[in-house]
Amino acid sequence: MAGKIDTKLSELAIQLPQAATPVGNYVAYTVTGNLVFVSGQLPLVDGELKYKGKLGENVSLEDGQLAARACALNLVAQVRAACGGDLDRVRRVVKLGGFVASSGDFTQQAAVVNGASDLMVQIFGDAGKHARAAVSCPTLPLGAAVEIDAVFEIAC
Amino acid sequence: MAGKIDTKLSELAIQLPQAATPVGNYVAYTVTGNLVFVSGQLPLVDGELKYKGKLGENVSLEDGQLAARACALNLVAQVRAACGGDLDRVRRVVKLGGFVASSGDFTQQAAVVNGASDLMVQIFGDAGKHARAAVSCPTLPLGAAVEIDAVFEIAC
Amino acid sequence: MAGKIDTKLSELAIQLPQAATPVGNYVAYTVTGNLVFVSGQLPLVDGELKYKGKLGENVSLEDGQLAARACALNLVAQVRAACGGDLDRVRRVVKLGGFVASSGDFTQQAAVVNGASDLMVQIFGDAGKHARAAVSCPTLPLGAAVEIDAVFEIAC
Repeated sequence: MAGKIDTKLSELAIQLPQAATPVGNYVAYTVTGNLVFVSGQLPLVDGELKYKGKLGENVSLEDGQLAARACALNLVAQVRAACGGDLDRVRRVVKLGGFVASSGDFTQQAAVVNGASDLMVQIFGDAGKHARAAVSCPTLPLGAAVEIDAVFEIAC
Repeated sequence: MAGKIDTKLSELAIQLPQAATPVGNYVAYTVTGNLVFVSGQLPLVDGELKYKGKLGENVSLEDGQLAARACALNLVAQVRAACGGDLDRVRRVVKLGGFVASSGDFTQQAAVVNGASDLMVQIFGDAGKHARAAVSCPTLPLGAAVEIDAVFEIAC
Repeated sequence: MAGKIDTKLSELAIQLPQAATPVGNYVAYTVTGNLVFVSGQLPLVDGELKYKGKLGENVSLEDGQLAARACALNLVAQVRAACGGDLDRVRRVVKLGGFVASSGDFTQQAAVVNGASDLMVQIFGDAGKHARAAVSCPTLPLGAAVEIDAVFEIAC
């Protein structure tokens, strides 16, 4: 029987990406108690870095929001893996940390990161409402436009 | 009867701001176990973003410290709300994450974030001594000079 | 009798630095439950800030990795202090937050932070595999090339 969140994903016509395994001496997530710390996710779509560049320079606000949404889909894919495939075990999206590659005068980081925040609430409802920080960086790994990390609470 | 921390606030002549509710699909804080994760706070004073600009460019060190203090007051207002109004339930300021909007050659982020660290110890005493990171960003949401997020431990 | 991790450090010919005590109203680490939050560490070697400058400008990738490794050694020194000297109490490196001082077009932050990730796995084995974020900053405190903070899980 499909779980409640899986059903919601179907209703939203969202297909989660594969949870990518990092290359290197770190992992996509760690579990401590009932907290899951998920590594910073880039806007990879079908294994390709789709959104590159900087907000305020060569990435539009709308594309920045899509980039943030892509990061969030990867975060959900990772927490699904942490839950052994059962997203109904997610009790709360605790915190998102949003890093937006920005020119020196772009100040709409909050609007960009909304692309991730909105997705979390679409998928998890009230449990998707999280604390967050939205800040900027001069650049991000591989030239990504956005990187987002997260803490989730899950049922053990 | 006023709580111990409320009494301390009176002694310090500190009136906490209203805890602002974010506009968007996120919240000012989440509680998981006895940890409170508070969203990144901007230097809002009386509902207005008082400290805008960049350190090393058009914001002085002293104003940066006042901006960090304003962020910290908003953090305390949020954790008070998380505690149902009773700040005596705060057991520890666990971590502050300080983001300082900086020019390319400003390197006194630690001194700026001291404006927040000092306030935490003034209010909470030894329980206010926290781990922290002080870093920089090219810009911050709405042009804020400083943004600070936090983790607190509270009694449940 | 030397602990397992102390023995490993000897095998690796690693001598941990002194755990530095911050100057100011914050501390090098806080403990909440069995989590240790360690403050952002700079690449101090023998009490001197050894790696200054920016990746993509005047710090090579290799020096950036050495800077990240130096930050990681300081993180381990701090968690050792948090464990009362017994590193065998470390159950897991939960999360590293890597901040790399970068020019506007440097995008190898992940490779830089590997200098810290690799060290954690050398010292702690599988327990050293952590979640992480690797991002950039225009500058860092005192002109440091890298700053890294961390969350560890320890046995109480």
